[in-house]
Amino acid sequence: MPADIDQRIRDSFARQTMLGTIGGQIDSIAAREVILSAPILPGCLQQHGYAHAAVTFALADSAAGYAALTVMPPEAEVLTAEMKINLIAPATGDRLTAIGKVVKPGRRLVIVQADVYADADGTRTHIALAQGTMVPVTT
Amino acid sequence: MPADIDQRIRDSFARQTMLGTIGGQIDSIAAREVILSAPILPGCLQQHGYAHAAVTFALADSAAGYAALTVMPPEAEVLTAEMKINLIAPATGDRLTAIGKVVKPGRRLVIVQADVYADADGTRTHIALAQGTMVPVTT
Amino acid sequence: MPADIDQRIRDSFARQTMLGTIGGQIDSIAAREVILSAPILPGCLQQHGYAHAAVTFALADSAAGYAALTVMPPEAEVLTAEMKINLIAPATGDRLTAIGKVVKPGRRLVIVQADVYADADGTRTHIALAQGTMVPVTT
Amino acid sequence: MPADIDQRIRDSFARQTMLGTIGGQIDSIAAREVILSAPILPGCLQQHGYAHAAVTFALADSAAGYAALTVMPPEAEVLTAEMKINLIAPATGDRLTAIGKVVKPGRRLVIVQADVYADADGTRTHIALAQGTMVPVTT
Repeated sequence: MPADIDQRIRDSFARQTMLGTIGGQIDSIAAREVILSAPILPGCLQQHGYAHAAVTFALADSAAGYAALTVMPPEAEVLTAEMKINLIAPATGDRLTAIGKVVKPGRRLVIVQADVYADADGTRTHIALAQGTMVPVTT
Repeated sequence: MPADIDQRIRDSFARQTMLGTIGGQIDSIAAREVILSAPILPGCLQQHGYAHAAVTFALADSAAGYAALTVMPPEAEVLTAEMKINLIAPATGDRLTAIGKVVKPGRRLVIVQADVYADADGTRTHIALAQGTMVPVTT
Repeated sequence: MPADIDQRIRDSFARQTMLGTIGGQIDSIAAREVILSAPILPGCLQQHGYAHAAVTFALADSAAGYAALTVMPPEAEVLTAEMKINLIAPATGDRLTAIGKVVKPGRRLVIVQADVYADADGTRTHIALAQGTMVPVTT
Repeated sequence: MPADIDQRIRDSFARQTMLGTIGGQIDSIAAREVILSAPILPGCLQQHGYAHAAVTFALADSAAGYAALTVMPPEAEVLTAEMKINLIAPATGDRLTAIGKVVKPGRRLVIVQADVYADADGTRTHIALAQGTMVPVTT
């Protein structure tokens, strides 16, 4: 992975504001794998008091996108072309964690997956899985 | 559509907080079709200054979910089982509008689609399309 | 649409063999929309005697792919990058018809949708909807 | 897994005809995981001579569906509600193998994934990944 990728991901994270609004943070950056997490904030709930699907999506999409950035050329940024998410359990508990991974790097398309987990009182529950396509864009 | 569906959707909307955080509102409710919109708030941007994909997803998913609610029995609420979104143009401009529709109602699964548009200076651009599955839950 | 696109699609159709195996044919070719159909052959059934999901997928994917070909440069061919299909009713009856459409053309990605219908005794039933991404490849 | 699940999957496989047409076979059946494979037959090609996406889909969908059957009640059969597939490399070589897995069992929905590989001269290439939803149906 490029030497400065850690810094580039942190710069990109700092330039966007959405993850800040949901309280997100970068937990780890490695080649082809980025982990993000967020608490479940009062302003991010759905009608039953669980975290809204948009929060789960935001974490999955962003973790996957930053994982894709680790396999792209230095001058490229990443855009989500498409993302499919299955929500398999309520997003409830203390904190949500998304693990984004590159399944297949490529010059034109990078295929990614992400899993999202909810932690509550030391128990981790798998709440969502996502599969999608990232495209490099040169700015 | 049930006589009180308009009120039930507005109640559900009021109970969740996520759409409030992104500035969302209900534009219209009709049988099998609900329209939501939101401005592009400073706290909801991605790294290039466009609306974050999570905002586009939130509007698409919610418009589709409320559309599904119009075909469900009165005692049921709706959960997203899965949603697939293709992001086809930058989410930029004055306002985003999502039109959610029921493609196929059903007792166990409701199949939905949503289109999201960005309005800028009177020009409307199609920025995303989504296809997914809603499930009724009795609370 | 390019002047020779009709012939190029028929040539491409002739070079592949899968649609022949399922009895598929081209019903119509227009700019951004291609229609294919097939009978439900005895060798293409699932365990309840309906057409197998692979047949529905084959028609949806191919109709969408050929629709994408109508918006690509003359030297390009098309590959499916990803496709998502919701199966909403049993594929039963006399014949299946897939209508593939371009939602958003592009130099690098072409976003497509397809709807599949089953005809039985003059009644048409919507059995599947698909949404996906085609990429041009230069051979 | 139910004691007779192996036989029930083989019976279900015998009742459908599509996988026979593409030359498919059951390689292994275990709790939550079923493996299918098929050669690349002359009648199942796309226009470049690779296996058609419908073959890759058929194997992925069926392996995932049979995996889902291993977690369902004895009287239930399985239908695909939706399936999303990313095609990441050409389906070329001697043989395709699909590994279908249950990610999340459930009474109403079973979430599945499948990976498809192509073997050529002893080298295995990951050619596709799929994520979808199976529903139990009682016949």
